[in-house]
Amino acid sequence: MSTLHTFHPTKYHVSIGSWQPVLRIAPGDTVVTTTIDSAGVDQHGHKVNIAGNPQTGPFFITSANPGDVIAVRFDRVVPNRAYGHTSGRLAAHVVDPDFVFKLPPERGRAIWNVDTEDWTATLASHDPIEPDLPDFKIPLDPMVGCFGVAPDRGQAISCATSGPHGGNMDYRGFRQGVTVYLPVFVPGALFQLGDGHATQGCGEIAGTGIEISLDVTFTAWIHRRDQPIFWPRADDGTWLMAAGNARPLDQALQHATTELVQWLGEDYGYSTRASSLLLGQCVRYDVGNVFDPAYTMVAKIEKALVEAYAPRR
Amino acid sequence: MSTLHTFHPTKYHVSIGSWQPVLRIAPGDTVVTTTIDSAGVDQHGHKVNIAGNPQTGPFFITSANPGDVIAVRFDRVVPNRAYGHTSGRLAAHVVDPDFVFKLPPERGRAIWNVDTEDWTATLASHDPIEPDLPDFKIPLDPMVGCFGVAPDRGQAISCATSGPHGGNMDYRGFRQGVTVYLPVFVPGALFQLGDGHATQGCGEIAGTGIEISLDVTFTAWIHRRDQPIFWPRADDGTWLMAAGNARPLDQALQHATTELVQWLGEDYGYSTRASSLLLGQCVRYDVGNVFDPAYTMVAKIEKALVEAYAPRR
Amino acid sequence: MSTLHTFHPTKYHVSIGSWQPVLRIAPGDTVVTTTIDSAGVDQHGHKVNIAGNPQTGPFFITSANPGDVIAVRFDRVVPNRAYGHTSGRLAAHVVDPDFVFKLPPERGRAIWNVDTEDWTATLASHDPIEPDLPDFKIPLDPMVGCFGVAPDRGQAISCATSGPHGGNMDYRGFRQGVTVYLPVFVPGALFQLGDGHATQGCGEIAGTGIEISLDVTFTAWIHRRDQPIFWPRADDGTWLMAAGNARPLDQALQHATTELVQWLGEDYGYSTRASSLLLGQCVRYDVGNVFDPAYTMVAKIEKALVEAYAPRR
Amino acid sequence: MSTLHTFHPTKYHVSIGSWQPVLRIAPGDTVVTTTIDSAGVDQHGHKVNIAGNPQTGPFFITSANPGDVIAVRFDRVVPNRAYGHTSGRLAAHVVDPDFVFKLPPERGRAIWNVDTEDWTATLASHDPIEPDLPDFKIPLDPMVGCFGVAPDRGQAISCATSGPHGGNMDYRGFRQGVTVYLPVFVPGALFQLGDGHATQGCGEIAGTGIEISLDVTFTAWIHRRDQPIFWPRADDGTWLMAAGNARPLDQALQHATTELVQWLGEDYGYSTRASSLLLGQCVRYDVGNVFDPAYTMVAKIEKALVEAYAPRR
Repeated sequence: MSTLHTFHPTKYHVSIGSWQPVLRIAPGDTVVTTTIDSAGVDQHGHKVNIAGNPQTGPFFITSANPGDVIAVRFDRVVPNRAYGHTSGRLAAHVVDPDFVFKLPPERGRAIWNVDTEDWTATLASHDPIEPDLPDFKIPLDPMVGCFGVAPDRGQAISCATSGPHGGNMDYRGFRQGVTVYLPVFVPGALFQLGDGHATQGCGEIAGTGIEISLDVTFTAWIHRRDQPIFWPRADDGTWLMAAGNARPLDQALQHATTELVQWLGEDYGYSTRASSLLLGQCVRYDVGNVFDPAYTMVAKIEKALVEAYAPRR
Repeated sequence: MSTLHTFHPTKYHVSIGSWQPVLRIAPGDTVVTTTIDSAGVDQHGHKVNIAGNPQTGPFFITSANPGDVIAVRFDRVVPNRAYGHTSGRLAAHVVDPDFVFKLPPERGRAIWNVDTEDWTATLASHDPIEPDLPDFKIPLDPMVGCFGVAPDRGQAISCATSGPHGGNMDYRGFRQGVTVYLPVFVPGALFQLGDGHATQGCGEIAGTGIEISLDVTFTAWIHRRDQPIFWPRADDGTWLMAAGNARPLDQALQHATTELVQWLGEDYGYSTRASSLLLGQCVRYDVGNVFDPAYTMVAKIEKALVEAYAPRR
Repeated sequence: MSTLHTFHPTKYHVSIGSWQPVLRIAPGDTVVTTTIDSAGVDQHGHKVNIAGNPQTGPFFITSANPGDVIAVRFDRVVPNRAYGHTSGRLAAHVVDPDFVFKLPPERGRAIWNVDTEDWTATLASHDPIEPDLPDFKIPLDPMVGCFGVAPDRGQAISCATSGPHGGNMDYRGFRQGVTVYLPVFVPGALFQLGDGHATQGCGEIAGTGIEISLDVTFTAWIHRRDQPIFWPRADDGTWLMAAGNARPLDQALQHATTELVQWLGEDYGYSTRASSLLLGQCVRYDVGNVFDPAYTMVAKIEKALVEAYAPRR
Repeated sequence: MSTLHTFHPTKYHVSIGSWQPVLRIAPGDTVVTTTIDSAGVDQHGHKVNIAGNPQTGPFFITSANPGDVIAVRFDRVVPNRAYGHTSGRLAAHVVDPDFVFKLPPERGRAIWNVDTEDWTATLASHDPIEPDLPDFKIPLDPMVGCFGVAPDRGQAISCATSGPHGGNMDYRGFRQGVTVYLPVFVPGALFQLGDGHATQGCGEIAGTGIEISLDVTFTAWIHRRDQPIFWPRADDGTWLMAAGNARPLDQALQHATTELVQWLGEDYGYSTRASSLLLGQCVRYDVGNVFDPAYTMVAKIEKALVEAYAPRR
């Protein structure tokens, strides 16, 4: 019998490590909680932590042990305040080096009204002011920018970056309804989450999504399997996704592709050659982020297609 | 008054350069022609050229001059024979270096039945045989893998690779209905095309799409504008797209992003800061290829969104 | 008055973080200590720790505070046992991806006799045995593969990798006689060191130097200056060196070059343009490692040249 | 019996391709000739060609055929005029992207007096003027920045970049006394050369060496061997060197390392494992250029060491 926990965070961490758990949950339990924004500002507009993608958690999942895999389903991901903020300039490293001379020198900042009734974000003000985008309005597509589990070897990894443990992947696909799979490195897994975005372009090329605090409900369990996994995986019902985190993007793509090939082999019985035929003609890639110290590339394949031709069903 | 040309190629080139034009066309003219497959095999199954993405053309577009931009609309892109072939293994450089030890050593090869009635490709046979994917069937999505214009400085660039002139970009989005824009480096532009794929996964990670000969109809004209362009651009009515070709993928992304920012500025009046706000939250990226010597990344943005908020309309 | 400490380590860490200091030293103090090898084996051949570049320390340097810079001079770096070991195969990621198929599948391992009288290392045995290199003998050039200070934001960073805090840079130039400069992120700096190599090729392309335990004597002090530094710097009397740690190597080179330009400006008065003229014609680069998760590139310039033309002397 | 040719060029090419040979030479012949500088200015200060590393040649080497390897020894490489010029600013892509905002926006240009008696270059003037480096004087170390052979598949490759055929590698080690080995793609090999530098820092990070016209004497022959080579190799008596040309630098390093391993195997009998032991502890890397479209990395090993332990001697 699973339990529904409601957790009000009072303390946050800007690196993902083996911190004191804030709550112990059993596999199958659901947690209703909140996250503050990347700058440490909560749903009431109060700055309650230093900036840097402060994380809610860690949550200790009982019976999760190193070598296991946990599954976390994002049941609900909804902004819990009426505004968000973004950077006002593309990052210098996403444009041609000689084009940097043409970028405005100040990074700038914009405020967006976020309306969860209309499900839209509207550009409200920006500094410096450039009245080029009056009434600029786009749909919401809330996501969790940074989440993960405590890494091994006593490491604590900055929430600016990402790795096999997850972290600051800033991928649009980590939204409500998705189930993510993460390798477990320490007892209890120690799951943490934060850095909500009301929406975000691919790559997070301006260095932010629409940064906002969130209401998040998630359910966690142990995903029993024979093999470990090496990179975050996800399933949204339509796509099987594997995320690789590294620089350059080429290496992130290698990690993601390899992880997806291994998934198809282990869980569906595809030989490497069969996966080559399948992925060669049908794989899709999404750019998670190209802003953070590690870039994120997601390799994905239609789940229905994988299932339809799986040698082992 | 535009002319409809029907052109039957008899000679092909495996590098894109200032070769003798095969046909002179006026801006606005339409050409009905064919391409042979990447291995030099035509619609009748005859090997008529050496392998290496042999190109039909070049077509001389009268009054196109260096500094101009040509537009080429792919009016029709349809396979003209009943089979295609693919590689049977992922490329070594798209997986983790240590995973290469687990790839089958032989590259392998598969034959696919291509049915333009059903609009499907079905795996017919492969060598070595691994009966993992019986009756594997996927939808067609034909595309032109390699096309471009003669480069400057007397260069002739291998059809294995790509650059500002276009070339072997292997991007799924270069399909029927799209209009591509290319910079002109030599009088007449000297447009060439080939390397059809019945479909292809993102990245062309096995090193091939379903390689096939094509019927292609295209219309070319001069796209009058004040500024030159630096990388291929495209418009399919839904998306404005800019392609960057380079390694690593990070650099291809920089080229594509910069080109898209410049497009929004020149043609729609967006300041760099306004483009940052727009693209930062709304850009999408597609991986063209990560197989060829130069990788291709496409940055794209919804055309309707760009038009709705354009400072200059 | 400075103190000479003799410190016998009994505990090691495989990540660099804010661990309990093992010794407090004053600026100017000298420490005589030992390091165990990367596999956790000490000078007596006893395995005393898990593998992964276990570090001696951390040493708390009194009065070192965040924003400061510490200097550490490696006064003595000498192997303290008679053998070392290396990997027996190039790493898969330092050769062409298609060449991986030709590498021996087992990594292998070799033992080397290390003679600090002769100052040579001689290949003693390897497994698998391939008698190609009988009596292969090379000069010693001992170095400290991994050292650094505790990073900020509560981070603890694996000794497999490197960053602004130092870490596993595996650079041949970090040998006896060099003074290294490191940014301070936490009170006391918390300096750690380990992973000795009797010698190593550039890039550590087989994944190891000749891994060995060391006697190390070092002297540490606070390097008073107005500006922070961002990456490890070093001075061996002949060269001014700046190390950048990142992937790809291009980015490591950007970090190293930028840090060197900033050094010439801050300490010698060179304008960016003057540095461009100087470095453009006189810079040298050394590849530290291309094996670890972050690669290391060192940009260096002759100190005498810098001093001879310094606007501010 | 070999012939000494004196050749006065009157025509140059800014791409390396199958151009009309200017001279036919027999294997073993020596050619005394000149090159103009990268801007197309000759020894008399006359601009005789468009800029872009215009090449002297091509020289047709009789009996050289595709699959062969030619050897070219640079017998003499000496500036033939009294001044050279350099860029006045580091390239935007060799520093951190955010540091570009701090670079001077104008590229600038400096003139250097080149004295082949004193064997020095002295900064004479620069624009914009910044009097930071009065009497800045450095030793000459003349080199040939760009040379190569005609590539295959009808290609003509811009002298801005490099590849398996050689090209604009801008490597300091291609100086007087070195013998370079190049693969042959077309009958006669069609060797070309140009882009002299009076000296240059590693990486050509300002985008130029001290650009100058040269007197060059070279001797060419066919290097008979059983296997083809894939990248330029060189031997200066002390080092065996292999050059890889690609981006990112990681890939250039992979090419160079692979080529060196193959060299040691083919010509000296080292197994891949033996090469791993040798290179793992003794390889050195030189950064050729990190400015051009393709970067150049050189892997090198002491020739005496290779010969001392060679299984096949």
